[in-house]
Amino acid sequence: MKKDLVEPKTLPGFLELLPQEQIAFDKMLETIRESYLKFGFAPLDTPVLELSEVLLAKAGGETEKQIYSLEKGDNKMTMRFDLTVPLAKYVAKNYHMLTFPFRRYQIGKVWRGERPQNGRFREFYQCDIDIVGDGELSIINDAEIPAVIYHTFKNLGFDNFTIRVNNRKILGGLCQHIGAGERVADVLRIIDKIDKIGEDKVKKELEDLGLSQEAIKTVIDFIRISGTPIDICQKLSELGILNETYITGVDELKVVAAYIGNFGIPESNFKVDLTIARGLDYYTGTVYETVLNDHLELGSVCSGGRYDNLAGHFTDKKLPGVGISIGLSRLFFQLRKADVVKVGGSSPVECLIVPLDEDLSYSIDLATFLRGKGVSTSVYVEKKGMKQKMNYANKLQIPFVAIIGETELANREVALKNMMSGEQECIKFEDTAEKILAYFNK
Amino acid sequence: MKKDLVEPKTLPGFLELLPQEQIAFDKMLETIRESYLKFGFAPLDTPVLELSEVLLAKAGGETEKQIYSLEKGDNKMTMRFDLTVPLAKYVAKNYHMLTFPFRRYQIGKVWRGERPQNGRFREFYQCDIDIVGDGELSIINDAEIPAVIYHTFKNLGFDNFTIRVNNRKILGGLCQHIGAGERVADVLRIIDKIDKIGEDKVKKELEDLGLSQEAIKTVIDFIRISGTPIDICQKLSELGILNETYITGVDELKVVAAYIGNFGIPESNFKVDLTIARGLDYYTGTVYETVLNDHLELGSVCSGGRYDNLAGHFTDKKLPGVGISIGLSRLFFQLRKADVVKVGGSSPVECLIVPLDEDLSYSIDLATFLRGKGVSTSVYVEKKGMKQKMNYANKLQIPFVAIIGETELANREVALKNMMSGEQECIKFEDTAEKILAYFNK
Repeated sequence: MKKDLVEPKTLPGFLELLPQEQIAFDKMLETIRESYLKFGFAPLDTPVLELSEVLLAKAGGETEKQIYSLEKGDNKMTMRFDLTVPLAKYVAKNYHMLTFPFRRYQIGKVWRGERPQNGRFREFYQCDIDIVGDGELSIINDAEIPAVIYHTFKNLGFDNFTIRVNNRKILGGLCQHIGAGERVADVLRIIDKIDKIGEDKVKKELEDLGLSQEAIKTVIDFIRISGTPIDICQKLSELGILNETYITGVDELKVVAAYIGNFGIPESNFKVDLTIARGLDYYTGTVYETVLNDHLELGSVCSGGRYDNLAGHFTDKKLPGVGISIGLSRLFFQLRKADVVKVGGSSPVECLIVPLDEDLSYSIDLATFLRGKGVSTSVYVEKKGMKQKMNYANKLQIPFVAIIGETELANREVALKNMMSGEQECIKFEDTAEKILAYFNK
Repeated sequence: MKKDLVEPKTLPGFLELLPQEQIAFDKMLETIRESYLKFGFAPLDTPVLELSEVLLAKAGGETEKQIYSLEKGDNKMTMRFDLTVPLAKYVAKNYHMLTFPFRRYQIGKVWRGERPQNGRFREFYQCDIDIVGDGELSIINDAEIPAVIYHTFKNLGFDNFTIRVNNRKILGGLCQHIGAGERVADVLRIIDKIDKIGEDKVKKELEDLGLSQEAIKTVIDFIRISGTPIDICQKLSELGILNETYITGVDELKVVAAYIGNFGIPESNFKVDLTIARGLDYYTGTVYETVLNDHLELGSVCSGGRYDNLAGHFTDKKLPGVGISIGLSRLFFQLRKADVVKVGGSSPVECLIVPLDEDLSYSIDLATFLRGKGVSTSVYVEKKGMKQKMNYANKLQIPFVAIIGETELANREVALKNMMSGEQECIKFEDTAEKILAYFNK
């Protein structure tokens, strides 16, 4: 390398894909977008940079450590670290211009200065939907969210996944009931370990927390509850816990469970899981996690929940909402690593025209014709040998090559080669588009 | 406002749209993307943040003043200010993994700290295509670029626009010929004013520059050349300028002009304009500008050109290329202001289901059915009066409302109201999708 050259590096933790990978990534992103659109969510695109005082209105210590901030002129700015705070700002700012319930999707990059490792990126895509109410928001919206998750992951090509649903009011009410209303996080941390450490050790740790034997029995009875979603709700009602938080939580969970069939979600893809709570402290009701059962090591690939008040730092208006997020960059990286997402076999070019002659008019006419009919077309115009031209088509995995030699030119024909089957046939200029479109079922 | 609330502000110069505007914006963006794809360009998505040493390898004073930079850990980083430098880095970095000519499109935001005014944004979308060769790149690629511009703007709904093409070698050769090889910029600045100040003043200014009367005559003869692209090329050849740069430029322009018919570009949309040069100093051959003739005040809405070497700061490989860029945020803003782009009449929701009853099962069944058939559907589940429910549909400009009352539920029917015509009819549950899809010609 010459001494004055700069090394063309990309920052660690910043995903940058080769073309074939990018095509696969874009396909996933488009599938998610189309799924969100099918549920009637409106698009939103907020700025990447916001005033720091706006983005950090609510943020705590961990967030502040991870943010990318900068100053320019008099402005202290921060790159968005999620799509939720920008949504809160947007809804508060445009309150009088929006129609509620406000249903929006946003797909965009966010930045967090985490240690890059195993699919944790510093710049990554989030794909969010939220439904925000003005003052109140029906619980039926919570019931619809699993339907969005289900259809999105079905459209992404998955079958064996489980949408796990819980309601934080149930956990909160349980803890109130056993006199541990301030210790919800601790109780949860312990019961979450039952699969790993077993019932006896869980009991021991709950004892160490200062819970009575009766309280511990209630907790153990609680986490032993199993069955269909409806069964679980029934058993929760029979547990003898009578505080309002708990009863409301169980009622809400009942509604969410009641409609899953109507929303087209098979029972096998839906599960009530009383132990999930989601880390974020702003969830107040229904919470969601989604796991791919063949790849549990990925953790939850789509999570979210209900919150009481989206924009309390920006407005006096009460704006309850419910939403989910898919961390697409990480998901894509891990699915590629597990070879679940395959690349290759797709090309931005559907037909490559390869002229053997110097006069390109006929070849360009063909390209214009094909593009007009909806075929993505490229013409190989460099002066190279036939072998190099075909090599180009092979490397880009282009499915059709239209070879234009003297004979084709003279007869207004095209030697169309299917690069997958190797078959080549001579067809009329006018029949080329139909032939290729038929292959793609267009 | 309570005293501890943060004002939900958006930074000046940062575009943030209301839902109806966002839908119109996304439609333009998707049209551009689809047009680029039709020409077989592969997608690329480079990081927003790059090492400052990489992004600024080549930058000059103006760029450095406008950039958004930040430091985190040991890294000095800059937000990309165009999509060209990241492309140069990408191609140099992945040289051995790419297939040349490398045809990529990239649509993404870039950041420049310009004074925000009249559609100049600090965060804005660029929509770029480039064709990058390895060592050499056929001039036919330059001829294809106007086809991409033409079809993109046609697909955006425009008819009355002109793609102006020139070749910088012609201007360079002309200046060499008159002994002003070092003064190209000055000569150009003067001849560019001919429409404003007239021929006599142009002559005077060229005199002040120190040009001989013979040289001035040549320049005046040059800028008086007009006619069809082919005519202009012919007249350029007859001007008696014999240096190699000039002759190559005219030959290249001839090739570009020769194929426009084959590329499907009507003569009325294409013009050779000998005075355009583009400001950026890296263009070396063909240059492009595009104007909307009914909105000349917008300036060029799509510009670009040929460059000799894309990535000279990153690699010893010679990588010539040709490309264009559409500044979408500015274009959208100005077209909205001129009322060329209309908003409204499009909704993310194609059918809103309005249940009159408490039991939502039937309504949700209908939503699931419609979504499965490809209709974007939403269910109004809030407890509100009929008037408010219909008001919601009106505000969101939803074209169909499916009203589900007791009768509809009992008969497995739907009262489907076309919100545009006001017509309402009672149809079978199963016929709903077909009815709505027919309206959208799906």
